[in-house]
Amino acid sequence: VRPRIVTLLSDFGTADAYAGLMKGVVLSICPEARVVDLSHEVPPQNVTAGALLLRSTVRFFPPGTIHVAVVDPGVGGERKPILVQAGGATFVGPDNGLLHPAASERGINRIVALTKGEYHLPRVSRTFHGRDIFAPVAGHLARGVAAEDFGPVLSEMKTLPLATASRDANGVVGEVVHVDRFGNRPFRA
Amino acid sequence: VRPRIVTLLSDFGTADAYAGLMKGVVLSICPEARVVDLSHEVPPQNVTAGALLLRSTVRFFPPGTIHVAVVDPGVGGERKPILVQAGGATFVGPDNGLLHPAASERGINRIVALTKGEYHLPRVSRTFHGRDIFAPVAGHLARGVAAEDFGPVLSEMKTLPLATASRDANGVVGEVVHVDRFGNRPFRA
Amino acid sequence: VRPRIVTLLSDFGTADAYAGLMKGVVLSICPEARVVDLSHEVPPQNVTAGALLLRSTVRFFPPGTIHVAVVDPGVGGERKPILVQAGGATFVGPDNGLLHPAASERGINRIVALTKGEYHLPRVSRTFHGRDIFAPVAGHLARGVAAEDFGPVLSEMKTLPLATASRDANGVVGEVVHVDRFGNRPFRA
Repeated sequence: VRPRIVTLLSDFGTADAYAGLMKGVVLSICPEARVVDLSHEVPPQNVTAGALLLRSTVRFFPPGTIHVAVVDPGVGGERKPILVQAGGATFVGPDNGLLHPAASERGINRIVALTKGEYHLPRVSRTFHGRDIFAPVAGHLARGVAAEDFGPVLSEMKTLPLATASRDANGVVGEVVHVDRFGNRPFRA
Repeated sequence: VRPRIVTLLSDFGTADAYAGLMKGVVLSICPEARVVDLSHEVPPQNVTAGALLLRSTVRFFPPGTIHVAVVDPGVGGERKPILVQAGGATFVGPDNGLLHPAASERGINRIVALTKGEYHLPRVSRTFHGRDIFAPVAGHLARGVAAEDFGPVLSEMKTLPLATASRDANGVVGEVVHVDRFGNRPFRA
Repeated sequence: VRPRIVTLLSDFGTADAYAGLMKGVVLSICPEARVVDLSHEVPPQNVTAGALLLRSTVRFFPPGTIHVAVVDPGVGGERKPILVQAGGATFVGPDNGLLHPAASERGINRIVALTKGEYHLPRVSRTFHGRDIFAPVAGHLARGVAAEDFGPVLSEMKTLPLATASRDANGVVGEVVHVDRFGNRPFRA
């Protein structure tokens, strides 16, 4: 069995240890997991920016990769923690639209609510589900726990309204959602 | 034998290659080690900030983890390079208080001065013990060298005065030692 | 066979996912590779800064390490994608001088033009050879493909004019090419 890759995407930055300790949680449960940072520099609580970054990246990882994404302004509220299986990848994070563009592009196979407490840390806070729910679920997935074991299957997940572009007589009309450090606009409408 | 995890914490930033080359040193000695960044964005030479970050993180890593921490304004001076075994974890770094809050919280089992030159790089600089002493010691620990082999056991290590808080008729009085990027004060007094 | 280490150096920053998805490409081809970030904070398109950072770091990695470096203002133009074998290390990147100081310091053994399309991603863009050529070549090298299989051997590579220093009656005259976050000038002339 080849080691499972677990990617991490968040708006945590790297000045705090939030990203680092999520790796500790994953590796405590599955020491063989390969943890890879996508980015922790998503603008704080910007779900759309995180969703686009995730969507643009997933296709370059091998089948079986587990993608944990945490941009979660509604943590502790009513939004559900979920996992989504889509086209060979598994996404883990909040059901706030963050996972939808990446998952729907690959074809959603199964959505599961993360309700089973035995796969979470013993004490779940109201402010850090990345550490307390998403990282341990990723660790258990990496160990081979089946998606259905984490909770009930859901029939739908939250979508994310993304800017669209149109062409008129004067050119292209859309919304700039991201400019990279070289001045490129890879997601330009 | 499962691969040993080596975490790195420093004030080196990531614009220079100091953090990256410490990983090279660890992996040169123990290619199977799993190196994980906690953070390299500790404010330069702020031992207290590094100590609090380390203390808040260690509990999320599995037993046997080796934590290398380098915030070291006194490098090249009289402070000793040490390792500390505490509650299943091993800490490696300067004896300037940086390791004490994390180690004492877990219960200190053994303190060792890193005096044996055969476990350091061949040429030890006066300015970069992270590369020349702490990273190679971590690599040798990951390979299974016993703590006592690195030098003489010490009876004490430097402690760090941390802010405490008190409650009076008007509320809580203390010192803010850290504010995260979301505006939380996880270590607030 | 011990796992091959692949280091990454670039000017991509970490706010975008460019560095993260290069890891996905490497791991898709060679899941056992150990990917290590040197730095992604080279000042944008500053080939000299990247070359000096690479040169200062390589000696701390074990023999057999593959170093991918991407600071590539001429991407999509006439500069060649190359690999260079030098003193037990293999360098992969653009032939714009970036690799030369590190490779020449170790003694250049072989230079190969990366022309064989079967070792690139199926669709090669004009703007991101890091993802489309350099990362997949590193993955195939990590899997054991021989250097000569990637394309024709070249007789020379581009060099980089580096500042030199001289001493006169008034002191030392040179050019400051880098100042680290502690105010040190490790590469000072």
